[in-house]
Order: sequence, then structure tokens, then C-alpha cells
Amino acid sequence: MPTSLVLERKGELSLRDIALDQTLTPTDVRIAVRTVGVCGSDVHYYTHGKIGPFVVTEPMVLGHEASGVVIEVGAQVTHLKVGDRVCMEPGIPDPTSRASKLGIYNVDPAVRFWATPPIHGCLTPEVVHPGAFTYLLPDNVSFAEGAMVEPFAIGMQAALRAGIQPGDIGMVLGAGPIGMMTALAALAGGCAKVYVADLAQPKLDIIGAYPGIETINIRNTPADEAIAGATGGWGADVVFECSGAAPAILGLPKLARPGGGIVLVGMPVDPVPFDIVGLQAKELRVDTVFRYANVYDRAISLIAAGKVDLKPLISLTMPFADSIAAFDRAAEGRETDVKIQIEMPA
Amino acid sequence: MPTSLVLERKGELSLRDIALDQTLTPTDVRIAVRTVGVCGSDVHYYTHGKIGPFVVTEPMVLGHEASGVVIEVGAQVTHLKVGDRVCMEPGIPDPTSRASKLGIYNVDPAVRFWATPPIHGCLTPEVVHPGAFTYLLPDNVSFAEGAMVEPFAIGMQAALRAGIQPGDIGMVLGAGPIGMMTALAALAGGCAKVYVADLAQPKLDIIGAYPGIETINIRNTPADEAIAGATGGWGADVVFECSGAAPAILGLPKLARPGGGIVLVGMPVDPVPFDIVGLQAKELRVDTVFRYANVYDRAISLIAAGKVDLKPLISLTMPFADSIAAFDRAAEGRETDVKIQIEMPA
Amino acid sequence: MPTSLVLERKGELSLRDIALDQTLTPTDVRIAVRTVGVCGSDVHYYTHGKIGPFVVTEPMVLGHEASGVVIEVGAQVTHLKVGDRVCMEPGIPDPTSRASKLGIYNVDPAVRFWATPPIHGCLTPEVVHPGAFTYLLPDNVSFAEGAMVEPFAIGMQAALRAGIQPGDIGMVLGAGPIGMMTALAALAGGCAKVYVADLAQPKLDIIGAYPGIETINIRNTPADEAIAGATGGWGADVVFECSGAAPAILGLPKLARPGGGIVLVGMPVDPVPFDIVGLQAKELRVDTVFRYANVYDRAISLIAAGKVDLKPLISLTMPFADSIAAFDRAAEGRETDVKIQIEMPA
Amino acid sequence: MPTSLVLERKGELSLRDIALDQTLTPTDVRIAVRTVGVCGSDVHYYTHGKIGPFVVTEPMVLGHEASGVVIEVGAQVTHLKVGDRVCMEPGIPDPTSRASKLGIYNVDPAVRFWATPPIHGCLTPEVVHPGAFTYLLPDNVSFAEGAMVEPFAIGMQAALRAGIQPGDIGMVLGAGPIGMMTALAALAGGCAKVYVADLAQPKLDIIGAYPGIETINIRNTPADEAIAGATGGWGADVVFECSGAAPAILGLPKLARPGGGIVLVGMPVDPVPFDIVGLQAKELRVDTVFRYANVYDRAISLIAAGKVDLKPLISLTMPFADSIAAFDRAAEGRETDVKIQIEMPA
Repeated sequence: MPTSLVLERKGELSLRDIALDQTLTPTDVRIAVRTVGVCGSDVHYYTHGKIGPFVVTEPMVLGHEASGVVIEVGAQVTHLKVGDRVCMEPGIPDPTSRASKLGIYNVDPAVRFWATPPIHGCLTPEVVHPGAFTYLLPDNVSFAEGAMVEPFAIGMQAALRAGIQPGDIGMVLGAGPIGMMTALAALAGGCAKVYVADLAQPKLDIIGAYPGIETINIRNTPADEAIAGATGGWGADVVFECSGAAPAILGLPKLARPGGGIVLVGMPVDPVPFDIVGLQAKELRVDTVFRYANVYDRAISLIAAGKVDLKPLISLTMPFADSIAAFDRAAEGRETDVKIQIEMPA
Repeated sequence: MPTSLVLERKGELSLRDIALDQTLTPTDVRIAVRTVGVCGSDVHYYTHGKIGPFVVTEPMVLGHEASGVVIEVGAQVTHLKVGDRVCMEPGIPDPTSRASKLGIYNVDPAVRFWATPPIHGCLTPEVVHPGAFTYLLPDNVSFAEGAMVEPFAIGMQAALRAGIQPGDIGMVLGAGPIGMMTALAALAGGCAKVYVADLAQPKLDIIGAYPGIETINIRNTPADEAIAGATGGWGADVVFECSGAAPAILGLPKLARPGGGIVLVGMPVDPVPFDIVGLQAKELRVDTVFRYANVYDRAISLIAAGKVDLKPLISLTMPFADSIAAFDRAAEGRETDVKIQIEMPA
Repeated sequence: MPTSLVLERKGELSLRDIALDQTLTPTDVRIAVRTVGVCGSDVHYYTHGKIGPFVVTEPMVLGHEASGVVIEVGAQVTHLKVGDRVCMEPGIPDPTSRASKLGIYNVDPAVRFWATPPIHGCLTPEVVHPGAFTYLLPDNVSFAEGAMVEPFAIGMQAALRAGIQPGDIGMVLGAGPIGMMTALAALAGGCAKVYVADLAQPKLDIIGAYPGIETINIRNTPADEAIAGATGGWGADVVFECSGAAPAILGLPKLARPGGGIVLVGMPVDPVPFDIVGLQAKELRVDTVFRYANVYDRAISLIAAGKVDLKPLISLTMPFADSIAAFDRAAEGRETDVKIQIEMPA
Repeated sequence: MPTSLVLERKGELSLRDIALDQTLTPTDVRIAVRTVGVCGSDVHYYTHGKIGPFVVTEPMVLGHEASGVVIEVGAQVTHLKVGDRVCMEPGIPDPTSRASKLGIYNVDPAVRFWATPPIHGCLTPEVVHPGAFTYLLPDNVSFAEGAMVEPFAIGMQAALRAGIQPGDIGMVLGAGPIGMMTALAALAGGCAKVYVADLAQPKLDIIGAYPGIETINIRNTPADEAIAGATGGWGADVVFECSGAAPAILGLPKLARPGGGIVLVGMPVDPVPFDIVGLQAKELRVDTVFRYANVYDRAISLIAAGKVDLKPLISLTMPFADSIAAFDRAAEGRETDVKIQIEMPA
């Protein structure tokens, strides 16, 4: 039976064996992969063959949202043992780089990231991974939830960068998977309420089912009017832009309160018009996020404590044998699909 | 029928009429008081006649935790109208002082604070208060909850000063009313879990009933062992010292993680030994709190959103006619009493 | 002899008497004006009759950069006395507004700002001003320097918002008066060096004469190449955009180091293209400034201590009788003119 | 000729050869040592045989403040080449530890620090050191200044932790070498002025010779009176406690302004009384420092830019052959000696 999901080239996936270098160094662990989520970036490599400067030129194993079981432990790894249930942070920096020394290893240019050419991903039976980027799952966190930590980590990074203060009113533009993750992270991270705005009612229905989340369908009510109404005209303390849409980005200054913050999470392909004078008139600050650093343990703590429940966002689970079907389904982009996961053979 | 609760002198309370200056300026509102909580400081003035430099030398109306209904509005107040249900921030700074200009009006030396000699408190039918320090209660927040905002504000200030980051592990030393408020503010404010340590099991039982709060009875387990066990030896991200007890303060460095934070909320009467080298070895930061500033709206948002439920901490409600009995009960300091409230005649 | 400089309407200035309400309240002081700087905004009202939404519809006294001598003190003002040499912060907020309570009174929508319609400015013999916004000048700070505090305050606000850390490498785009002020504030505020980029060599020569400032003439070297060369390819820690020019704004992500900061000081009239993905790839933060709050005392301390010397930036001083000529000269926009000041009759 | 300065045991130094493991890994560089400063901790090991838990039980090479020339470069080191003039950060963390990942590698419990038992120091001809902790010296920074970066780094760490804002008024208690370094770092790092208080006039004379530094001899004027006088009763924005003296620590709350900060740099051996209520009444924050992290490049930038001149603090330079005499002189603790340096044979 074939073992790995390989993107041969743009538009062509195959289930097959592939030889990977899986030498274990003393600081590594070997992990039997159990659950892998399908991410929009995986799908984009499948459908477009590239993302920005990263182009698929050789066959590449896909997948970077993963949980598994430790099956071998390097001599210098002390916090893990064989049999531990874990999830893995898929970006591996140079630990001695200038950025890593500063604690911002996510912006280390030398990061090697799973399923980003030319680095193979994790839709394969075993991976070798640095112990330092492998995290123990508490007993009450399932493999499925473990594989959700990666996308949730992006929301966590956004919530951390936002500098949320207890009782803030949050707002999220865009109810895609990352917008949902960000809303939940902001809510668990101290917001009293989070308002999520989108055009697609099915998405709003999914995220609006969480207590503390209010939804705004901007087909019916402009986002600025809605947040003004909800805050007595003051505005949101923190606004998370997760849509990447130019009109949303242009309108950001109207949504935040004087002295408030904006976090740019969505990635518009090209430069977009930005209302600088509007930002200045309220002296807003704007933060940006790039993946995440130092958030996995925080994310796991919130899930284990029950403050964040990601299970309702797992829309569909398919066996590894049906991986290609899973990718095709994900490529459809159904509004009711948040996350599709693939279960590896135990 | 007598209208006000007056502390005549140390140890002597009376229900009687008292003439107060209640002239309304254009920036004030007049409020019919509805619910007033009994605070430890009120009780301390009753039993000791003073707190630090503040000595009761003239009869003084007690009470500073209050909600009510607006009955008159100054000409320049635009955000309130007659009939609004409100709660009141009891400290009134000089708005043009150097501290106020910086936004830290709580440390303005000119602050006039209810029921702090020589300023009268609010256990009286009506109060005149600056509109800027009077906050609208949403429909789903009761007068009883409105009168809880003041003590909760102290916990909120602690949570704000702590710089909680989403998913932090919090720890609170001391399960008195302020320790409980702090634990709930820290939890709502972004902590994944908060560990509360105390000697008194009845207090721990009350706060431990909240999801997300874990309790440590330090008669059974030393606080440092407990938090080490809970965090794999790493320590808490933020530790709130709410006991004011010297041994607790001395042991603080053992509780926090490297690079973590400590907030000193409890007020030991005299200087206490502090383990500076212990703090340095982990490069900990220490914040302190003095009352609160700019937290009332945050506190109300969290209560209205259902993220913080203070109702279980209201142990007993008594009519105004029984105010003296309420104070005598509070002075007993029963371990099962968190907050006693007094309801004014409607 | 006429007493005030009045902008009658777009393009028409006159020296004449004008009746102004100058009633002193108990929190005010009365000040005999001594030196007034000519600001680009004053000139813009003269030449265009408006700035954004602020339109000159009635005759208005110009001038908002001022120093003077206290000649009368309101009963509640305790930090000033008759004869004190002072400078004045020209924006007066509502001290009880929500923004003011937070310490960010500069973004209070109710701010009344000198020489911003319909508020008169200070090119008139006397002004009545809140004591809280009137600052004592040390003996070693001249009236001329006192009148430079206002434009320098904008640079200080930029330096504060930037969160400069000791030893940062700073960069300023645009060597106009505000760019120069920002460069000096950043240097005094902790930067090891500040690189200033512009097209106009005469401007660069003026600011480049300060130790610690390096200049980049972008006609010769692109700004990104210059800063890369100066920092071993790492980038500047903080970049201050003071040009308002669209190409400069678009290129900002190339100038900052991973995890660095950008402060938007320049005000492009319309929305401009912004490279959001470029910002994200380095996880940059972007701050904005609107005037200033709580910086006057800091600015005066730096000037009095000799850490900032603004005297070389005073290009020309003219007597009040020649005010109109001073404005006409300022309207020429000579590259060698940084600041033109007007001296009032003593 | 003997090559290394070895502390054989408490009180006994010898110049002799000693075999050290100096294997070069691909991430290391080999450095010929040129200048080494004598630190109080080196002297303390000499005179007491231990510092806290660190006890000299085997012969140990002393010295950790060093500059030198690169003579061999590991294959993976790209930012250095043979012949480069450098200085070295003497603490080497585990780069994959939890603390290191957060960027606070100074509090990594696994740090190996030169001349801290059982790790050998650098008073020896060659050292092998990680490239990531070896910093290029600009041409205008001498070896002597390069060897001053280490003690200055402690002052830099204090200045960074203080969160200095441009124009702050700083205060330093204790004019020992670290107090002096902290004062200079705080001044370069954004303070308008720094007031340094001590009992020893010769020390105050040395640091008081720097522009921007004011001195307070507390034999003549209590520190709290002096700072109150200098700040109109408001207090210092940031206070650096560098004396380690109990009375100084107890009096800290009187020195800072409301909402100000304190940094504890001095290390009192035992717990000392701390005025917590005094801190709370002004809502002060307290930071602590432990060595330093991520400051070497900042320190070098400030020195190279001429913003910090450490040369006047180098009191005496002796050749390596006189090392033991240098240590004996340092052990005398003359008030006019700030830093004694040893020059290695070229």
C-alpha cells in the first residue's frame, strides 16, 4: 500500500512511496503521523503549483498540520519519550540566527517549513522533527485537535501581536478558517466579545454558534455601522483583518476606536490602497503576523483547559487512502467546510 | 425613616439623616442609590477608625461599591439620561493633574474617594457624581452585579497591569474577595488556567467551582511544588500576590517562570523581606496596583458578555434597615462570606 | 499699532486689532506672547484656505508655536506664577472625555487647537490658556527655543510611539522640518544613529551637521540599498516615514529589520498603495502619530539638558511688524529655510 | 612563558599552562584573545572561592570580559572571517531551550558562562566560541573598548528592561562600575538626564564628568530630597538600584514618580525589607536584570557612534605577565579604580 501523498506537479497528486531523508540527530524525535489537516496553502500548491516565490519544481509530500506518536527519541531530548502523543510545529529555524536569538524565529529567513518547496511535508508515515518543536498533547486533547493546533496558532499569533487587554472589544473581518481561528483566539485571549464580519452567511452561522461571538453580515449592514452601533460610536479596541480584501483594508480606520489597534492577517497579493490619514487621525497602531512563534504551548493550554473548542470546526475526516479526494473536496471551497482532516493508518 | 449609614466614630454606626452637599454641576449626574456592597475597607474604618494615614475624625457616611438610577443630568453630560441604570467609580481625580493627563488618574494625589475621610460614601439615598465616572449598565446586568463592578475593578487592574498574554498560566495567592476577583479577571483576561492558593478550604471551594480555576490548599501542598507540578517545572507566567502575607511574598520567585511576572495586590502593613536575587535569577518583573483606572467599561463588558459571573460571590443581601447588622456580619469575617450587599429602598 | 496677524480669507493676511474672548477661569493663566514660529499648516491655511475638513470661513488669528511670559494666574493654578517664562501646548482637550481619561487626549475629538478653524491662534499680544497645558521654561531655554517645542513635540511623539530601544538604528524618510525634528528626537531618545534620506541636498546638509545623523541622498543611492549597506543587510530597527510620498511609503518594508517598526508621520492626502505582504514577511509593526500628548515636559527636559539643540534649525527671525513678509517667505518653501520665527513686541 | 591565569583555589592565583578542550565545531570561531577586563566577580572568586551556589573546586582560568582577533572560522559561520577584530559574549545558552526560543536566553538554566565554575574563562591565549555570540568590532572601536562591552552590556540590559521613554529623568543609586555603566546606558538610551547618588565622592567625580550626568553625594543630601528638588517634587521616571544596599532598596518608592519604574540591578546577598505599600501608592513597576541578552550589537553601535565613551572608565591597563598584580590591585577596591584591564601578548 502506498505511503505518502505526493504533489508531482501542479494539478497532479499521487499516493505513492517516496524516499525521504529521515536520519535522527540527538536533538530530534521520530514521530508516527496520525492526523493531518488540509490547509489552504496545501491546496494552493495543488491547484496553482506555487505560492509567491515558492514554486513546486520537484515532487513534494504535502501536509503541515499534524499530530502523531513519538516512536524514537534522540539522546539529548529530555521532555519527550516513546509513546507520547504530540503535535509538531512545522517551521524549523536556525536556532542561532539573529532573529532566533531575539525570540522571533518565525521571521528567520532560514526557516525550513513543511510542504513549502523544497521541504517535504508530513502526509507520510513517519517524520523526524526537532524535539524543541514537538509538543506533548495532554490526555484530553485528541489527535484531531492536535492537528488543529497549527492553524489555530496563526490566530494565536494574531491575538498576541494585538496586545489584547482584558475586556477589549474585538472585531474580525473575514470568516474563513483563519478568521475563525483568530476570533476564537481573541476571545479566549481576553476580549469580552468578538464581532465577525463576512458576506457568507453559512460561515457566519458556524462561528456565530460560539458564545461571545457576534456576527455581522456585511451584505445587510456595513461593518463600520455595525461596530459603531455595538460600541456607542467608540469603535473596536482591536480589529483583525483576515479577509485580504482591498475594500476591507481601506475601511479599517473606521472600525477601530481612537488609540486602538489593527492586525493585518489576511494577505492581499498586491499592494492595496491604505488610508494613512484615517489611521493617523485616531493614532492607530497596525501589527502584522507571519506564521507564529512561541505559541504552541499557549494554544495547547487553552484547548486542554476547555477555553477553546476547535472540534466544531473539523468539518470532515477522511482516511489516508482517500487523500486525493480530500484535496479535491477542499479545492471546491464549500462555505460550510472549515477544516478537512486526513487520518493516517494507525 | 433614617436615610444614611453613618460611622460616628470607631466602633459606632448609626442609621440617621445627615446633611450633605449635593449641588449638581453641569458635568455631574444625580443618582438614586440602589445597591451597595460592604467592603473590607468600610469594615476596617468601623472596627479600627482608620486605615493608614486616613483617620475618621468626623461622622462619615460609609459605602463605595454602588449602583443606582440616574435622576438628574447636568447640562454637559451627553452619554446618560434620567432613568439610566448605572454604577459609579468612587474615586474622583483632578482631571487636569499631571497623573490624569497621563491616563493614570488613580495615582493622582488629589483623588477624592468615597468613604475615605473626609469624603462621604454612598450609603445614602442620593449621590451627585461626575458623569465621566458614571457608567451605564446594560439591561442584562443587575443592580447587584453593578455594585460588584467596584471590587472586580481591582482584579481587572491587576489583570491589566500583569500584561497577560493569551494562554498564560496564572496563579493567585490568597482566596479573599480580592484574590477571587483577580482570579476571575485573569481568567477572563486571557489566562488558560488560574491556580488559586489559600489555607482556607471553604474559600477555595467557592472559587474552585468556576471552570478554569484550580485550587491549591497550601496546608496540603506547598504552592511552589503545586505550580511546578502543574507546569512541568516551568512555573506560572503571571503570579498575583493577594494575601499580603510575608511568607507568601518571600516565596514569590519560586512560583514564576523565567521571564515571568508578579503583581503585588495584597498590602502588607509594614515592609516585608523580598528575595531580590531570586527575582533576578529569573529576571522577573513586578507590577503593583493602586485601585484602578479606565477599567469600569472593560469590567462591565465582561460581565454583560457572560465571560465573568460575579453573582455566586454575592453571599448575602440585606435591606438598608439592617445595615448595621450587615456590617457586624461582615466584621465576623466568615470564610464562606465573600460579598455582603445592602439594598437601598427603591 | 495693530496687534494681531489675521487671516481674513484665503490668500489675504492683515495686521490689525481683533476682539477675542480672553476671560480667565480659575484654571487658566494669561500669557504675554513673545515668540511664535511659522508652521507649514499656518502657511497652508494662508495659501489654500483650508486643510482637509477645516475650512477658514471667518477671519482667524494664525500661529500655534509659541512662548511667552505669564502675566496673570488663575486661582487654582499652583505650578506657575506671574513672570514665569513658558511655552504653551496649543491643543486643549475636554479633560473628562473618554480619550483624555485614557491619557491619549490628542485623539479626543473635542480638542480645540490654536489656528485651526474656528479657533484663533496666538499671533496676538496675549492669550488665555489652561495652566495644565502651559509649561515652565528653564532659565537656559530661550523664548526662541520655547517656540520650537511645538514642532519638536511631533518628533517626540513619533519617537515615543516607535518604542525605541537603546542602541536602535533609526531611519527617517524626508528631511523637511518634521523629518528633522523626528531625527533629533529619535537620536536623543535612544537611537545609536539615525539615517535621514531625502532628495534635497541643502536639507540633508542642515540635518547632517548634527553628530549621530547620517544622510542619504536618494538621487544617488536608493534608500534600501543605503540602509542595507549600513546594517549588514539587517535593516533599520525603526523607520520614520516623514515624506508623505507614495513611493517612499510603498518601499517601507525593505528598510526595516525583521521584527522592526515603522512610524507613519507624513500625511499623504489620499490613500496610497501599501505593501502588506512585505510588512508581514518581516512581521513589522506600524505606528501612526497625531500631534502629541504628554511630551512637552520631555521635550523641554531634553532641550534644557543639551541633548537636543534646535537653535540651528531657526533659519530666520523677523519682528511682528513684518509678519506678513515672514509668511510670504515661508510660502516660498526655500530648501534652506527650516523654521521662520516671529518676535512679538516685548 | 606561562600562558593562562589560573585560580588554583581560593586566594591562590598562578600564571601557568593548562590544557583546555578547544575543539572547533562548524558553528564556532577560534579567537586570539587580546584584552581582558577584570570584573568584580573574577576578584570575588579569587578572594572568596565562590559566589552563591558556584564554588571553585578545580583550578579554573579566570576572565570573561574579552576582545580578540578571529584566527579560525567554522564552516557554518558566515558573518566572520580570519582577521576580524571581535568581542565575545561570555554566556552560551542551549539555543533550543524554552527560554532561548523566547529570546530570553540569559535566563536559560543551561547557560555556560566563562569563569563560572566549572567553566574556564578567557585569560588564556585562545578561545573557541560560538560564532553567534562573537561580535565584529568596527574599526573605530579599540580592543580595550571591545573588552568593555561586557560590563556595559549589564547597564544596557538595565536600560532596556527599564523601558526608558525619550526624555525620561533617570536616577542611579550606587556609583560602582555597574552603576556607572547603567547611568551611561540610560543616558544614551533616551534619558534627558541621569542623577547618580553615592557616598564616595571620588566615584561621583568620575561619572559626574560626563555631560548629562548629575551627581548626588548622599552624605550631604538625602537621595529623595535631591530628586524631589530636581523634578519639582514629581520624582524620577526610572530609578536604577545598583548599590545592593538595604537602606537604598527600602527607600526606592520615594524616588520614583507616580507610575514610574524601578530596575533592581544590585544584588543584596539576603532578602531585604521592601516597602510594598509605598510602591503600590504610586503604582510603580519593578524590573530585574540577570546578565543580558541581545544587547551586544546595541552596545557596540552606541560605542561606535560615539554616543557612549567608555575609555575614561578604563583606570589602568597591565600586561598579562602582571595579571596577578592586576587582580591584587583590583581586590583593593580603590575608589578611583573603575576598570582594570589586562593586555594579552599580541
